[in-house]
Amino acid sequence: MRINVIKIGGNVVENEPMLQEFAKDFAAVEGAKVLVHGGGVMASGLQKRLGMEPIMVEGRRVTDAQTLEIVTMVYAGWCSKHITASLQKNGCNAIGLCGADGKIIQATRRPPVKMTLASGLSQDKEVREIDYGYVGDIAPEGINARLLESFIEQGITPVLCAITYDGRGNLLNTNADTIASSVAESLAKAGHDTILTYCFEKDGVLYDKDDPDSIIPEITPRIYDGLKVEKRVADGMIPKLDNAFKALENGVSRVIIKNAGNIGNSTGTTVKL
Amino acid sequence: MRINVIKIGGNVVENEPMLQEFAKDFAAVEGAKVLVHGGGVMASGLQKRLGMEPIMVEGRRVTDAQTLEIVTMVYAGWCSKHITASLQKNGCNAIGLCGADGKIIQATRRPPVKMTLASGLSQDKEVREIDYGYVGDIAPEGINARLLESFIEQGITPVLCAITYDGRGNLLNTNADTIASSVAESLAKAGHDTILTYCFEKDGVLYDKDDPDSIIPEITPRIYDGLKVEKRVADGMIPKLDNAFKALENGVSRVIIKNAGNIGNSTGTTVKL
Repeated sequence: MRINVIKIGGNVVENEPMLQEFAKDFAAVEGAKVLVHGGGVMASGLQKRLGMEPIMVEGRRVTDAQTLEIVTMVYAGWCSKHITASLQKNGCNAIGLCGADGKIIQATRRPPVKMTLASGLSQDKEVREIDYGYVGDIAPEGINARLLESFIEQGITPVLCAITYDGRGNLLNTNADTIASSVAESLAKAGHDTILTYCFEKDGVLYDKDDPDSIIPEITPRIYDGLKVEKRVADGMIPKLDNAFKALENGVSRVIIKNAGNIGNSTGTTVKL
Repeated sequence: MRINVIKIGGNVVENEPMLQEFAKDFAAVEGAKVLVHGGGVMASGLQKRLGMEPIMVEGRRVTDAQTLEIVTMVYAGWCSKHITASLQKNGCNAIGLCGADGKIIQATRRPPVKMTLASGLSQDKEVREIDYGYVGDIAPEGINARLLESFIEQGITPVLCAITYDGRGNLLNTNADTIASSVAESLAKAGHDTILTYCFEKDGVLYDKDDPDSIIPEITPRIYDGLKVEKRVADGMIPKLDNAFKALENGVSRVIIKNAGNIGNSTGTTVKL
């Protein structure tokens, strides 16, 4: 069957009017679907209100035991349940889950990694060992596609947050983009025509980053190579597109990069092989 | 089929060694089961750390919008997912849910109620109107027994927290004891041999409150009347026992009041008609 896996970030989850608009549009998406959501800004806000300083390394949150409690409360608690209630209100029978629920997403704790990082105010680089703490990486077999299918067959839409489970009693903080691509790949592997949509703050991948109307409608590997030669894709977009091609190589039918406000229309960039 | 509905309070959820011991014992309970949990002390703690003063009236939390965010984060976030992960670790395939998930528990927001309360430091009583805010009462038809059965049939144990849903986009704070009895009554009504167990800090209902060994093994309506005449049951136990008899009248096979540490043995008080 065709399954839409749609990922929204904190910019939607943490903006009440945008979230309510999105909930209406998402509920109207026909057929089987899975929602994956972030919530990082709210987690950082709660950390600060509790007197803790969020520590990010290369855009990922260092997660000690206290931080794990906070991200679990924010992602799996308020964000997950508020999104679920908002979808229910619009007639979409949703269920908010983290990786431990029904062992739906198992991950392994990331061992400390050696990274080359800028050192202090100078531009010197130094190699440091970073322990991200309770942060998990998903193995390809970590997604319980059978349970996702069971919900979909019952007309229930899974809403997945960025908390996974290690199979030994520990919750782990995991990147929501990676959860979305892992879920899409797993459903594709189970034989479904899977479309993965990443929502972000722009309307698509732009040919000219200063011109919001210059959306590139379609990116194939050949077009991607050309964009890279022309230096048309910014540093932040390269891992997203690399990730999109990896998903396609693992059987996902299409990857779409678009604004959450356009979920109901065709505006956006389609990535395909 | 026989289904055990077991309710634990904050004294277990918020004590890590007790919770881990309970998780092991609960995982070993044979057959179909549902867990209902509280988490109120942790919610009050987070309120205080954020500079808010918890307001309780007659033991129930007044829940404004900010308090609702906090109880949802604590109950449906950390408590629910930490319990679920702890059960998974012990081989019990659990799923942590709130009322919005799959519309499993619908409630209606409680209208402001007139209450007779002690006035200030004097012992005078005055009638005041109390608006509990985002607090929900469960209608008998509010429990989605079919979805609970579907999880049980898949070998998945539902773990329910004290957050319900009003069908119109709002989460509501609801007493966990009431959730447990409503779930048990609903499963009994669906034809199951349902046993409801309330865990609390003592080993059972005591004949002599100062003698922990004076556990009353069985309470029937006739025995209950005698205990009340003898003033053997304390004020706090009367609503619990009234609630237990109500559950029995609504088809629950047995109600057991015991210590969470004794979930694996027969110590405790059985209430039956």
